Amino acid sequence: MGEALALAERSRAQTAPNPNVGCVIVAEGRIVGQGWTQPGGRPHAEAVALAQAGAAAEGATLYVTLEPCAHVSARGPACADLIRAARPARVVVALTDPDPRTNGQGIARLRQAGIAVTEGVCRGEARRSMAGFLTRLALGRPHVTLKLATSLDGRIALPSGESRWITGPEARADVHRERARHEAILVGRGTFEADAPRLDVRLPGLEHRSPRRLLLTRGPAPEGWEALSDVADLGALTGVDHLLVEGGAGAAAAFLAADAVDRLLFYRAPILIGAGTSAIGDLGLASLAEAHGRWRFIEARSLGSDRREVYERERD
Amino acid sequence: MGEALALAERSRAQTAPNPNVGCVIVAEGRIVGQGWTQPGGRPHAEAVALAQAGAAAEGATLYVTLEPCAHVSARGPACADLIRAARPARVVVALTDPDPRTNGQGIARLRQAGIAVTEGVCRGEARRSMAGFLTRLALGRPHVTLKLATSLDGRIALPSGESRWITGPEARADVHRERARHEAILVGRGTFEADAPRLDVRLPGLEHRSPRRLLLTRGPAPEGWEALSDVADLGALTGVDHLLVEGGAGAAAAFLAADAVDRLLFYRAPILIGAGTSAIGDLGLASLAEAHGRWRFIEARSLGSDRREVYERERD
Repeated sequence: MGEALALAERSRAQTAPNPNVGCVIVAEGRIVGQGWTQPGGRPHAEAVALAQAGAAAEGATLYVTLEPCAHVSARGPACADLIRAARPARVVVALTDPDPRTNGQGIARLRQAGIAVTEGVCRGEARRSMAGFLTRLALGRPHVTLKLATSLDGRIALPSGESRWITGPEARADVHRERARHEAILVGRGTFEADAPRLDVRLPGLEHRSPRRLLLTRGPAPEGWEALSDVADLGALTGVDHLLVEGGAGAAAAFLAADAVDRLLFYRAPILIGAGTSAIGDLGLASLAEAHGRWRFIEARSLGSDRREVYERERD
Repeated sequence: MGEALALAERSRAQTAPNPNVGCVIVAEGRIVGQGWTQPGGRPHAEAVALAQAGAAAEGATLYVTLEPCAHVSARGPACADLIRAARPARVVVALTDPDPRTNGQGIARLRQAGIAVTEGVCRGEARRSMAGFLTRLALGRPHVTLKLATSLDGRIALPSGESRWITGPEARADVHRERARHEAILVGRGTFEADAPRLDVRLPGLEHRSPRRLLLTRGPAPEGWEALSDVADLGALTGVDHLLVEGGAGAAAAFLAADAVDRLLFYRAPILIGAGTSAIGDLGLASLAEAHGRWRFIEARSLGSDRREVYERERD
């Protein structure tokens, strides 16, 4: 399943509104088929892997990060039917598909055909892998990551406005990798005017993955940009299942106050600034109790002399 | 050496102006003697371990976190002479003693007696273990740890002043363990007046390790407190080789601006506060370049839902 999850990463932010799924078929200890959702959402991962495996799929084990779909579409057959026809002995599924057109029916159809099905393997990783698709289904808007590049004391600039650079080259390269995992990036008006950011992906081979650029503004969008007039309009963005909010403090506060952030991505430089610009504007908290119970630590690692930390919103 | 370093921790903050040293004697794969500097600074770790080992020390290996002293004092003989008399085959030393009365002479005296000496084993850990003693020798003042308990965005209170609690019970218990590792704790006038902190060690069995309480103030000290009128007077504090600065933002800034902080101890709660009180006041930085190159990441771990992070000042 680890391999299937890795394959799914290849089409992250390229399949909206479809999920980015990965699939691996193993026969006698060898991988005989691999697939991932193709850009645009079709063909599905299972269809690609089954085509590669051919007759070798019979009696094999098929690993897939999301329950095979049970609905026939104009763009292709139901994956559950394709799998039944290929007759694997066993199917291992990370996550049940919450799409009401499938939602357990895919698995039921496999079991009716006598195929053994195991559910819930690497469920957490699969939820993270398909966060864009799942957030769109559950909350009707893209999955939102808020990036914050700060000093150890949470500052993003000196009182003079100087902000280049807080973090080092390794952290900045990681930001470019993160951009390639999002369909769109957003900044606020202040950051746009102060920094005129390019917000592109400057990594060899990934230049074409530069995301759409959004400006949080009630005014018109500059050339090459799209305007988002209010966080409440987030759900209306089409073709965007993953949004990266890059600042500044006002945009961060607007998204947080609307509870429209699902993931916090910190880059912390080993410096102290003291007086300066804070990363997050006024959230209007009435008490500390309101602040607790929202965020869960996921991972931390070093990037050069900086630290990268990820937190996720707890919504259960 | 790991065992010797662990023994040295038992007398941390109880041996000033002497170093807290640990010593282990191993013969034929068995520990035959263990010692650590006793409270008040005498007897030394080697004397305790040798007394315990008796005749078993002959031909054994002696591990010690600091070079054995070469100077006879009114309070006891030189450890190098005690070791020569016990005739171990080998002595392993973590750190050469920078005290000018020893500074290599202890090791030379052992080698003259035909004892094999290995130096520099776990040097970094030993430097950390004896940071109080070493800072006093090198900089003429105590080793200073600045504790910062903040939200993810570096806040220590809401705009209303509410600050209890940002961190959870595990992190607060860790603060009490840290207090027991320091001879004195300091807060600024604002924190004293807002919180009237007790600053004691509320851990079973360690209540007697509650450190002296210092207030950074030009005025008189309240009962039970001592006044430090200026960070520049730090060197004059006697009996204090480890000082824990617990805040607030003004005291933190005063120590940082004077470059009088050696270790940053962060406790970060998984919350965002936005507008509020920052952990560190104005440092008067003229450029970001001034802020870089000072701090090095040492370790991070989870304490309940909070994260603890340690950074150290780079002075080389």
